[in-house]
Amino acid sequence: MMPGPMTLNFSEATSSDVFAQRLPQSKDDALPHILAAVVTHLHAVIRELRPTQADWRKVIEFLTDVGHASEERRQEWVLLSDLLGASALVEEINSRRPKKATPNTVRGPFFRADVPQLASGSNISLDGIGEKLEVIGCVQDLDGDPVADAEIITWQANAQGLYENQQPDLQPEFNLRGLFRTDAEGRFHYCTIKPRGYGVPDDGPVGKLLRQAGNPLHRPAHLHFMIKAPSFETITTHIYDGSDPHLAEDAIFGVKPELVRIFERQGKGTPSWRLDLTFVMVRARQGGEA
Amino acid sequence: MMPGPMTLNFSEATSSDVFAQRLPQSKDDALPHILAAVVTHLHAVIRELRPTQADWRKVIEFLTDVGHASEERRQEWVLLSDLLGASALVEEINSRRPKKATPNTVRGPFFRADVPQLASGSNISLDGIGEKLEVIGCVQDLDGDPVADAEIITWQANAQGLYENQQPDLQPEFNLRGLFRTDAEGRFHYCTIKPRGYGVPDDGPVGKLLRQAGNPLHRPAHLHFMIKAPSFETITTHIYDGSDPHLAEDAIFGVKPELVRIFERQGKGTPSWRLDLTFVMVRARQGGEA
Repeated sequence: MMPGPMTLNFSEATSSDVFAQRLPQSKDDALPHILAAVVTHLHAVIRELRPTQADWRKVIEFLTDVGHASEERRQEWVLLSDLLGASALVEEINSRRPKKATPNTVRGPFFRADVPQLASGSNISLDGIGEKLEVIGCVQDLDGDPVADAEIITWQANAQGLYENQQPDLQPEFNLRGLFRTDAEGRFHYCTIKPRGYGVPDDGPVGKLLRQAGNPLHRPAHLHFMIKAPSFETITTHIYDGSDPHLAEDAIFGVKPELVRIFERQGKGTPSWRLDLTFVMVRARQGGEA
Repeated sequence: MMPGPMTLNFSEATSSDVFAQRLPQSKDDALPHILAAVVTHLHAVIRELRPTQADWRKVIEFLTDVGHASEERRQEWVLLSDLLGASALVEEINSRRPKKATPNTVRGPFFRADVPQLASGSNISLDGIGEKLEVIGCVQDLDGDPVADAEIITWQANAQGLYENQQPDLQPEFNLRGLFRTDAEGRFHYCTIKPRGYGVPDDGPVGKLLRQAGNPLHRPAHLHFMIKAPSFETITTHIYDGSDPHLAEDAIFGVKPELVRIFERQGKGTPSWRLDLTFVMVRARQGGEA
């Protein structure tokens, strides 16, 4: 019954090779190579887990649900990438900095680029709710020399663990956000309130799945920073509150020992805190980002 | 600055272990194990391909686009699973039948369960367009004994490569679909037209990506069959036209040598064809499907 020689031999053992063999073998085009690698790992995990057809339909349903949960104000795919550690791994692969330099972490979904510049010493807590925190920082290069006129963008959750753009009706616009510039000695300084940790959204398909699997969904308390200066690599990072009980199980795998700081309690009575920070920038490679 | 011992060591080398260590280690619950395996392979492919952050954003955008392309009448995730060979591999893993038995293949998106039963010998080409094809088949068990009163559902594309439910306004309802039953000798018989091969949809994000990668998007000409009989495993399969030039590059990896048949040309003049088929069923395991 066979119509001459067949080149087909799709089987459990050969499936990803059969896929790859059909693609053009051009060295100039990366896409066939990328697809073949993705299919190799996809088929490997299927062989390992051996899903039934009904299991596979559940996988398709989950992907469909994640798609439907994603809209303009909610990026469920980014959440999935974050919670599976994929976003953190991509950061890790792309920011191999010298040990002394400040490492990058995931930027997260709450950044706003349009924050106005403020004078040094300004208070970014526009509603004044929370325990006072004074941030005193400096930006240096790898030799310890100050980086003057660096741009510091900071953003953070409030004392309830919520960002201004999650509560547009309850928090003043730009609450707990600021843009500062370092002085000639590389220093900057502002006032804010102590942020609280929070849970990642667990009302969508991604959060539900990971909660069901028993995955921790906490984000330990942190401040966000993006630091730019001409001819240096931009730093996008977190500074974590070293007293947070969930430090070892950040849902998005952003905590690194170099980014953990103890917030120092000041005086007696009403709690008030101080945080001293040093960021170390690396000169951009030729053709790299400014 | 470090607040005591840290259990965190997320790095390129450890990332998937760090993910897995956080999950509950219960043996009763499969989900943590499944997630850990998925993350292991996901992180492996990221380490292998080393995407930049911009590359990773493109991956997120692709997933977002696939989600938005999926709606009631279109399942772009199933298409992705089919075109990456994942659906075929899941079939392969779940239908390990004896060599003599008819293998399963992917069911595909055009099946309808509500097709009416027809008398033996009926013509399922309701518009009469195409080259006549007579199908003469029988259903047997592994010992070669006939399976009487088996249910045969067949469906196929027309001579332009289009299914009835793709062209509800152009083809009569149930065109090129039928449900037949085998007689006491396990035989069935019907008339139809010779189907044409077709391209898979390439107007959505999945088809666009695979076309860009140079992946073949053809489906060689075929007939679909679903065969059910009490106490036998249901067969869901294709029979492929052995003369189709794209036989070795079926976009969904459904072609197996056992499923390829030469359509025999009958007489002279106007082309007319005959196809002889034997399906071999396997008794269902205890607790298996009827």
